[in-house]
Amino acid sequence: MVLSVAHLGPAGTYTEWAATRCAEWLSQQFSQSCVLQPHTSIARTLQGVADHGADFAVVPVENSIEGSVTVTLDMLWQLDQLQIQRTLILPIAHALISYAPTLDQVTEICSHPQALAQCQVWTETHVPQANCLALDSTTAALSSLAQHPQRGVIASHRAADLYHLPVLAYPINDYPDNCTRFWVVSLDPSTQGTHTSLAFSLHSNAPGALLWPLQILADRHINLSRIESRPTKRSLGDYHFFLDLEGDLDQAPVQTAVQALGEATKVLKVFGSYAVI
Amino acid sequence: MVLSVAHLGPAGTYTEWAATRCAEWLSQQFSQSCVLQPHTSIARTLQGVADHGADFAVVPVENSIEGSVTVTLDMLWQLDQLQIQRTLILPIAHALISYAPTLDQVTEICSHPQALAQCQVWTETHVPQANCLALDSTTAALSSLAQHPQRGVIASHRAADLYHLPVLAYPINDYPDNCTRFWVVSLDPSTQGTHTSLAFSLHSNAPGALLWPLQILADRHINLSRIESRPTKRSLGDYHFFLDLEGDLDQAPVQTAVQALGEATKVLKVFGSYAVI
Repeated sequence: MVLSVAHLGPAGTYTEWAATRCAEWLSQQFSQSCVLQPHTSIARTLQGVADHGADFAVVPVENSIEGSVTVTLDMLWQLDQLQIQRTLILPIAHALISYAPTLDQVTEICSHPQALAQCQVWTETHVPQANCLALDSTTAALSSLAQHPQRGVIASHRAADLYHLPVLAYPINDYPDNCTRFWVVSLDPSTQGTHTSLAFSLHSNAPGALLWPLQILADRHINLSRIESRPTKRSLGDYHFFLDLEGDLDQAPVQTAVQALGEATKVLKVFGSYAVI
Repeated sequence: MVLSVAHLGPAGTYTEWAATRCAEWLSQQFSQSCVLQPHTSIARTLQGVADHGADFAVVPVENSIEGSVTVTLDMLWQLDQLQIQRTLILPIAHALISYAPTLDQVTEICSHPQALAQCQVWTETHVPQANCLALDSTTAALSSLAQHPQRGVIASHRAADLYHLPVLAYPINDYPDNCTRFWVVSLDPSTQGTHTSLAFSLHSNAPGALLWPLQILADRHINLSRIESRPTKRSLGDYHFFLDLEGDLDQAPVQTAVQALGEATKVLKVFGSYAVI
């Protein structure tokens, strides 16, 4: 049997790099070969697994500079049955890829919105004349570069190498310590690892409403490694909370905390426990 | 004297609409005329006020579907001295503006990333053949529509009216109950209103670290209307927390809570108290 790994494509995106790393791990883990399955959006990538069209999906969840990848959180809440199997962290170093001989001849810079945001100060300083165009992925515009020498694309150095394209500047991130965390998800139950992720909505918007769930965790000495609020999309001021905890669902404190959270919250969704690849 | 109001331009953006509403309010409040000052990014809009280049700035802070406008939160933390004077909420209803006679002739859809995201399901259902291009503002591509009849732009119906452009479909939001909250900021102190906004970083990432600040608010029966985490941009897993409280800085409970938060947190920044326009 061949395992399929859905990801945001095409080859050369950071997520494809993460998917490649994940496929290597899966091959070792299950002694099976893997095939990558590129998709045009994160939403479609996750939907692919929910619809049994792929065995695993690799999706970005958080960048150290830009914060959460909100579509990943929203889709996980919406699709409901996906479970996180593993996490992996990749360093992000952006390159400006272009056939322009010098920076002052670049008039248009294309990339994924997060990549553009991560190089915003560099771009405004070194290529102030350029207009920024955000695209679906960092590599979407690479194929058009030869026809548009005034165009630059922000992508990984790996993408430039894969497509044999010239790198005009590297690295161009505004913050050198830039990395992105990915989740590997599937429909299999997952109860073991170093971290557990869950999300909930609250019964009421009263003083201290969020305090009770957090108290449940603190009482059991469970560290919260991350909390993120997302709008429920019903009305302004109505939120879901996404939490990453230290510990796994096979441990008694996490088990009793999840049970207590079920009573303290309106809707609770547990996305599983996982370790780093 | 004329008051200047910085905003993300050009005319026809939702923020320009909010700035127009804000200018009307300022004119009444101070009996002075106002001039709008369009900028090419939210970062530049806020920097304009910090540098004394504009008296006020109007910036989006939160959308009921997409969540926080993270650049606004990050810039407020970074610039430090800006104070929120007022908030206003506008309904968001997107239109597809295009010279194409029918939807199946649209091959390219341009807009701001948040507007594209808010119409994603509609776009995938009704214009599946189109590529999406994210731009700096909803109106950036409107001037090119006449030359590119296969292009569509997602913007407000007001933008189509302002520039005398044809509306091909309206409304096209995936969620009908879509609205955006804006903040009006300046360098003036602000201590009165219905809400207070602040942000802090924590001393440590230990179990219950976030509990102490939230307990301080709950003990004083202060309701938290919003909590949002943002990366500090130093390393993955290191966050600032942005809070909106009910109550103002002229009230004793909020005053003592802010004092206690100063002790319970590593860095505390208070962005002022404000009411709805």
